[in-house]
Amino acid sequence: MVSEKTTENLRKIASLMRYYILLMTTEAGSGHPTSSLSATELMACLFFGGFFRFDADHPKCPNNDRLIFSKGHASPLFYALWAAAGELTENDLLTYRKFGSPLEGHPTVAFPFVEAATGSLGQGLSIGLGMALNAKYLDKLPYRTYVLLGDSEMAEGSQWESIQIASHYKLDNLIGVLDVNRLGQRGETMYGWNLEAYEKRISSFGWKTWTFDGHSISEVLAAYEEALRATDQPVMLIGKTVKGKGVSFIENKDGWHGRALKREEYDRALKELGQIDKSVRGEIPLPEDLKPKEQAAGGPVKKMDYPADKPVATRKAYGNALVRILPRFPDLVSLDGEVSNSTYAEIFKEAFPERFFEMYIAEQNMVGAALGLSRRGKIPFVSTFGAFFTRALDQIRLSQYSDANIKFVGSHAGVSIGEDGPSQMALEDMAMFRAILNSVVLYPSDAVSAERLVEEAAKHNGIVFIRTTRMETPMLYGPEEKFVIGGSKVLRKSEKDRATVIGAGVTLHEALAAYEVLKKEGIFIRVIDLYSIKPIDETTLREAASATRAIITVEDHYAEGGMGESVRSALFNSPVPIHCLAVRKKPKSGKPGELLDYEEISRAAIIKKVKEVI
Amino acid sequence: MVSEKTTENLRKIASLMRYYILLMTTEAGSGHPTSSLSATELMACLFFGGFFRFDADHPKCPNNDRLIFSKGHASPLFYALWAAAGELTENDLLTYRKFGSPLEGHPTVAFPFVEAATGSLGQGLSIGLGMALNAKYLDKLPYRTYVLLGDSEMAEGSQWESIQIASHYKLDNLIGVLDVNRLGQRGETMYGWNLEAYEKRISSFGWKTWTFDGHSISEVLAAYEEALRATDQPVMLIGKTVKGKGVSFIENKDGWHGRALKREEYDRALKELGQIDKSVRGEIPLPEDLKPKEQAAGGPVKKMDYPADKPVATRKAYGNALVRILPRFPDLVSLDGEVSNSTYAEIFKEAFPERFFEMYIAEQNMVGAALGLSRRGKIPFVSTFGAFFTRALDQIRLSQYSDANIKFVGSHAGVSIGEDGPSQMALEDMAMFRAILNSVVLYPSDAVSAERLVEEAAKHNGIVFIRTTRMETPMLYGPEEKFVIGGSKVLRKSEKDRATVIGAGVTLHEALAAYEVLKKEGIFIRVIDLYSIKPIDETTLREAASATRAIITVEDHYAEGGMGESVRSALFNSPVPIHCLAVRKKPKSGKPGELLDYEEISRAAIIKKVKEVI
Repeated sequence: MVSEKTTENLRKIASLMRYYILLMTTEAGSGHPTSSLSATELMACLFFGGFFRFDADHPKCPNNDRLIFSKGHASPLFYALWAAAGELTENDLLTYRKFGSPLEGHPTVAFPFVEAATGSLGQGLSIGLGMALNAKYLDKLPYRTYVLLGDSEMAEGSQWESIQIASHYKLDNLIGVLDVNRLGQRGETMYGWNLEAYEKRISSFGWKTWTFDGHSISEVLAAYEEALRATDQPVMLIGKTVKGKGVSFIENKDGWHGRALKREEYDRALKELGQIDKSVRGEIPLPEDLKPKEQAAGGPVKKMDYPADKPVATRKAYGNALVRILPRFPDLVSLDGEVSNSTYAEIFKEAFPERFFEMYIAEQNMVGAALGLSRRGKIPFVSTFGAFFTRALDQIRLSQYSDANIKFVGSHAGVSIGEDGPSQMALEDMAMFRAILNSVVLYPSDAVSAERLVEEAAKHNGIVFIRTTRMETPMLYGPEEKFVIGGSKVLRKSEKDRATVIGAGVTLHEALAAYEVLKKEGIFIRVIDLYSIKPIDETTLREAASATRAIITVEDHYAEGGMGESVRSALFNSPVPIHCLAVRKKPKSGKPGELLDYEEISRAAIIKKVKEVI
Repeated sequence: MVSEKTTENLRKIASLMRYYILLMTTEAGSGHPTSSLSATELMACLFFGGFFRFDADHPKCPNNDRLIFSKGHASPLFYALWAAAGELTENDLLTYRKFGSPLEGHPTVAFPFVEAATGSLGQGLSIGLGMALNAKYLDKLPYRTYVLLGDSEMAEGSQWESIQIASHYKLDNLIGVLDVNRLGQRGETMYGWNLEAYEKRISSFGWKTWTFDGHSISEVLAAYEEALRATDQPVMLIGKTVKGKGVSFIENKDGWHGRALKREEYDRALKELGQIDKSVRGEIPLPEDLKPKEQAAGGPVKKMDYPADKPVATRKAYGNALVRILPRFPDLVSLDGEVSNSTYAEIFKEAFPERFFEMYIAEQNMVGAALGLSRRGKIPFVSTFGAFFTRALDQIRLSQYSDANIKFVGSHAGVSIGEDGPSQMALEDMAMFRAILNSVVLYPSDAVSAERLVEEAAKHNGIVFIRTTRMETPMLYGPEEKFVIGGSKVLRKSEKDRATVIGAGVTLHEALAAYEVLKKEGIFIRVIDLYSIKPIDETTLREAASATRAIITVEDHYAEGGMGESVRSALFNSPVPIHCLAVRKKPKSGKPGELLDYEEISRAAIIKKVKEVI
């Protein structure tokens, strides 16, 4: 039974938070006050009702409970919470949405209490799932992860991916708080105030659910108490709330999403709120001081052992590399989307099953979970077919605003996969990953470079994409060869070079084959292995541009946004023409060689192009 | 009660289909026989049990029932069906997966009975939903849409988007056939043979469900009969099946996904199948001959009526344009992802509510549904924030293999949206849409060009992306100005031009402002409105490159894959340097002007760059 004093105190805090919400949005002249007001009691009771455990002096502390605002537009509520906790002043709140303020329109990691940037809806639950996986299966710590969800965003499929996977992994440390305020951006949601509709659907996936009045402090406290009693089940607390609660003229009204009160409306609203006790502050209990479980013990990293004369697929080298480098990167974990026998993540899974997570065919949740793991200090390697990362581009895009440290490994690059046909061919993947700010895009051509680049990716702090190839490719390098992000290798070079051919993956091997044919005809070409597509080795490219008459890039990817345009951008002020061979016709099923010829990215096409341009 | 004769006949046909499945995959040396064998009875009974109505001489006939193989890897089963229907010969089947054959590894529209290309899982139900929407709300025809689903793919969130929206729209003409064969690509699915797990989850969303033995012909026939009795509810038939059914040594075994039988295994398998009656053929009843409802009557297209001195947001012009051009394009429909008051699709929705579909915050399903509508002859305009199309890139990507005729309109381009911050900013959208084969990417800068480009998009048969801007921008053109896909406008030009500045959207207005400042200093620049990013106006660009000393592109988009690289690609053999101003720093909240300055894409940055390079 909650004491009257506690209830009264929480009521005061909620009033103060409402004041803050209105203050900062009216001062900013924009923002989402109504979506914040609906969840005020939900969050005040979590933070200051004794449930949430957090050491505000150490926001990164591994024992802290985590809170993610999946409905990121309720950021005023988030900032109001921390102001009520004494961590932000009223003056801080007045910087909301202003240039340079950490209090951005939607939460970003510029504000240190933000666990992950949100604002594209339907992502918070996946991120929370990653943090909950970390607590239960990796760090083995009792922290809980809470996710504030909007009702509109429950339409996103990614939510249902998280719901099924959280249940599969029995994440009783994951608690969703669903703010059913009935109204979306432009009107009523699909289910309005039908709490049972949410309850029925969510519980059907094996979650514990609980419906209640989201503005009754005693009911909200009771809901959290119920949540803490869950065993082997994630919990969804489903609160009925009123959008704009506390300000009569915006309560439960259409047309008030993403709209701040004007000054005179603000004055009227404050009168309705009544007396605000600005001195009241909420207290957040500290978590226990526990140590995360030591991750896989260190140890010597073994050497590679590939026979020089035996072709190996780079995708297989990826799996081998994960196992080989784990001793050096004990925080490494692997996630795969039900294709580990194709991406070869299964090699790692078999060696270290406790560090592998089967994420099933649900790529959006997989990437969101990877972000959650990354924010808890892990180094997630996420694998699926390169084509299927397109499924999660919004999650990938948003993760860049959380300073994500995630490695994406996409297999089955390009038309060279052959008979399976275009649906399985990654042909836009380089374009998509290059467009992410400060991303790294790597594209190895043999097993040694693949392994080394996996290692470099693990060392690098940030978003890395590695493109691997389905077919086996011959060895190009000895086991001691060095590769760096931003590098390249000049594989054929002479003073007689008339053109430069740049390839990676299968096309590099085509370029080398073209070299042999042309050499016999007395035509010499320079051949470059452009294994780092972004950043790119400008120095080597400029050298080639000044030494030869033309540059020819060859890529198993559509013409836009990939290797060709990457080289064109690097040489934007070079007078030498840059010809790009790329996939330009609708691909189909066929043998890899047939398709390379058809798309004019084979050795024959290279030879033809070289002769044309020299 | 089904007669013994019917049952016996269906059994014979199923055996013949199994023979075809094994024959073509063994001949091809690859493919997915086991995933085909599990659903053989499910499909044989649909096609030849009297349920499916289809005029095979007229596959495009509007009255035909539609069948989509969401589990596209079961393509051998699809081809076997049509062979059993007498539409393919055994010799045709022997071309399966061979270069140039319409019988591709995963179904594509190269084969005329394929409604839409599939193969990336979890998309068929959305496509079917679009076709069912068309039947119920637009054409008003009694055709039904059937979707064959795999159990593994039920993990995709997009499925649950479709499930909730189909129920919302009461699509009793949409029938899912779920082939629960227990095994995914690399092992057991999340729910194995727990049919009740599927039934509970799917029915919780308001679907009618039915579980049965998917190999018992009488049970399968009963299931379809039950499906036809549904009212106002979509139906999911959930069949328990055995992967590899009919061939003992591959039945229900791991390691047999995506693997064809070797010749000797094939011979053993045929022995198990027993006597095959190759003369048996199934009959598909013809549909009724009904006319689709006439779409909105034609009529004169009104003229535009924008005052020359009043700024208008291009996103608003988009909404106006849809209403204005409908008489000319009566097949036009609009879909929006719960942001119609921001994209201004609401203008159309208010004018023509019966041609507008609210698709809620579920972008994947929205795009899949648009493909379904497109395949049924409609011209879907799909709108959301440009940033949120990243959510549906896999659906967009796959739609290109269905010859999709879809118009994507993405609002809130770039950092110029201001205070809402990076999560809402489209900064990778041009890169992503440019990478789609044969796509068109348009980027208007004022209301007139926006309206004209919407019209051009409607005329063009294919995938078009139109990028619109949040803020109001001044009028640049009179109402009679012409715009074409692949065109551009030279807005400032003189013989004294020293550099060319290319912009679109907000940056074009920055370029025009920079022009005025520079002119006062006696520096002349050429200014180009590059409203067609793809295809691009090479002629005008080459002229500018030969007339001026440098090209400067300015875009409110990340540096990779957008306008700058598009220009660099067009001028790949031009000696003039192409400098690209683009978003290169992590964006944040702030005023639009502050952000343009911060990212160095404002008039100030343009002036600085011009002075640097001339």
